Amino acid sequence: MYTFVLVHGAWHDGTAWGAVIEHLESKGHRAFGPTIAGNGKGVDKKVTHAQSTQSIVDFMVQNDLREVVLVGHSYGGTILSKVVEQIPERIKRLVFWNAFVLNDGESLNDNAPPHYRQLFDPMASASPDNTVMLPFPIWREVFINDGDLELARWSYEQLSPQPYQFNEKLDLKKFYEIIRSGRVPCSYLNCTEDIALPHGEWAWHPRMSNRLGLFRLVQMPGSHEVIFSNPIGLAEKIIEAGRD
Amino acid sequence: MYTFVLVHGAWHDGTAWGAVIEHLESKGHRAFGPTIAGNGKGVDKKVTHAQSTQSIVDFMVQNDLREVVLVGHSYGGTILSKVVEQIPERIKRLVFWNAFVLNDGESLNDNAPPHYRQLFDPMASASPDNTVMLPFPIWREVFINDGDLELARWSYEQLSPQPYQFNEKLDLKKFYEIIRSGRVPCSYLNCTEDIALPHGEWAWHPRMSNRLGLFRLVQMPGSHEVIFSNPIGLAEKIIEAGRD
Amino acid sequence: MYTFVLVHGAWHDGTAWGAVIEHLESKGHRAFGPTIAGNGKGVDKKVTHAQSTQSIVDFMVQNDLREVVLVGHSYGGTILSKVVEQIPERIKRLVFWNAFVLNDGESLNDNAPPHYRQLFDPMASASPDNTVMLPFPIWREVFINDGDLELARWSYEQLSPQPYQFNEKLDLKKFYEIIRSGRVPCSYLNCTEDIALPHGEWAWHPRMSNRLGLFRLVQMPGSHEVIFSNPIGLAEKIIEAGRD
Repeated sequence: MYTFVLVHGAWHDGTAWGAVIEHLESKGHRAFGPTIAGNGKGVDKKVTHAQSTQSIVDFMVQNDLREVVLVGHSYGGTILSKVVEQIPERIKRLVFWNAFVLNDGESLNDNAPPHYRQLFDPMASASPDNTVMLPFPIWREVFINDGDLELARWSYEQLSPQPYQFNEKLDLKKFYEIIRSGRVPCSYLNCTEDIALPHGEWAWHPRMSNRLGLFRLVQMPGSHEVIFSNPIGLAEKIIEAGRD
Repeated sequence: MYTFVLVHGAWHDGTAWGAVIEHLESKGHRAFGPTIAGNGKGVDKKVTHAQSTQSIVDFMVQNDLREVVLVGHSYGGTILSKVVEQIPERIKRLVFWNAFVLNDGESLNDNAPPHYRQLFDPMASASPDNTVMLPFPIWREVFINDGDLELARWSYEQLSPQPYQFNEKLDLKKFYEIIRSGRVPCSYLNCTEDIALPHGEWAWHPRMSNRLGLFRLVQMPGSHEVIFSNPIGLAEKIIEAGRD
Repeated sequence: MYTFVLVHGAWHDGTAWGAVIEHLESKGHRAFGPTIAGNGKGVDKKVTHAQSTQSIVDFMVQNDLREVVLVGHSYGGTILSKVVEQIPERIKRLVFWNAFVLNDGESLNDNAPPHYRQLFDPMASASPDNTVMLPFPIWREVFINDGDLELARWSYEQLSPQPYQFNEKLDLKKFYEIIRSGRVPCSYLNCTEDIALPHGEWAWHPRMSNRLGLFRLVQMPGSHEVIFSNPIGLAEKIIEAGRD
């Protein structure tokens, strides 16, 4: 039986993992879905990427979690990379689920097609707290393309503005030292209809997955948001990606 | 409940949609499979792309169809692009099913690998009426690779020679204005074993789908001809691609 | 009903096909899984690629097998290409299952990412008999990524050192003459989670499959080693790839 810590993506918070956690627990695993600092409704949004990272480190240390299979979704991948630099001894495996694997010295926006930056840069500047929100048409067509309109609307209501850390360049030298040494093995879980990053030149897989070097690939049908459209299927694939 | 107008591909005619329409109707939708002018057996083949387009516009106007989900397969994608320029107010959504999405000013042959043009150009010149036919070995191996030989033979008998409009360059400025404005949303339905256009450099997806800008991706297993090898599965995916 | 000859990949021997053969026979087909010369446990490993090829030719001739659907996995694809040059009249169709399709004059290593050669070249030199073995971590994460640890360990025990023929350049002019003429049709069976060759620049499909020219594509979910993780599913897809 495994201990999973599930790190959500941008605009989400830890409650999004509810049905996934329930299924993991029904299979005898332990699973936690902490909310990253700066995420969720009604909280202080003025947090840096380092502060967001620290909140997940603190969660794992305070709960004394060990042998953790650490799963990150989307933006959550950037958190994973920095968490493992701080507490590699607590982590059994990293699972990137359609998650950013940045090259050393890059920002999230360096890895996203230009139209996202063109959308978000002015939006963040115009906001009172340097946050951005995903427009509903993009959510419906590109993030949850496998859901119906009702699910798209319901899930959109769960979202909240995201601290705009997407231009922060991350030093990832230690991350790459750790994973290249084989000290913490990695998996990449890819949803085959995920076009939150468009297929082709800017795709999640194999563009970012191959940066992991030796890694295990697991795939499943579905969009970027199977957390809402197919949480049980997602939980099953997290087990497949996370097991020894 | 939706109103679907289904536009077939080259060599096919509207009867190919029979089982798809039956399934859509059984789910409470309205569905129509008109035959494009110049297609089908025993008809005048000397038609231009504009005349072919006009036949679909006329069908929709004469039947006073509104709020139409307009679906196009393969060559039918080039028809969709020109129909929406004429009657955007009748169209709720465009669904390109392994269909050509040409750049402005391009022809279908500009988007197909050279071996097709090398095959078809002389064939059209040698024909009495500027038509081309698909050789059976290509049909069997590359178009209906998921069917057995009996299905390949039976379905091949349904085909008829195609007016050779593949070198006509199309003005698509208005098409791109309409879809880029978000006035008519678009979906792309991709069959993952479709090698009518070979995977890689010349692939349907993401090469042509990405030209749509913001679009919904839906995928299903199968060849270019699931209309014959899996019509019920196709109907289900047309609903998923076509819904709001 | 068909006659299948199944040619295993590197490190494997013919016994790996056991469950596949059983399923093919249960469907009324004949199926054979010979061991390539130099493969298997406790045999002379000092064999060239030509000698390995000859052992399969001999097997087919001595058993007077005709109308053979010849299936090759991985390294076995290089054997297929040379066998068909010698006895094309006995072969009904070639099925490359995540198998190497080399360009004329190339070696297997010319078609694999550099890290494999960097791993294997010194390993072969250091071995007493010019053989190489696949390290278990690569087997577990990259070859049998869809299996659990127990299956990974059990199947790894079936393997044995491989004669290091991977730098032999193969003359494949006759092979390409035969398949380009259409005399022996070809299929490519691709497992969609196979990262033994990483997805992208170095992928099995469409990089090597497209070299076949006109070919039938069949795909299934799974890793490079569905022979162990899903032999019945593999047998079903071999039938789909191999039928007329």
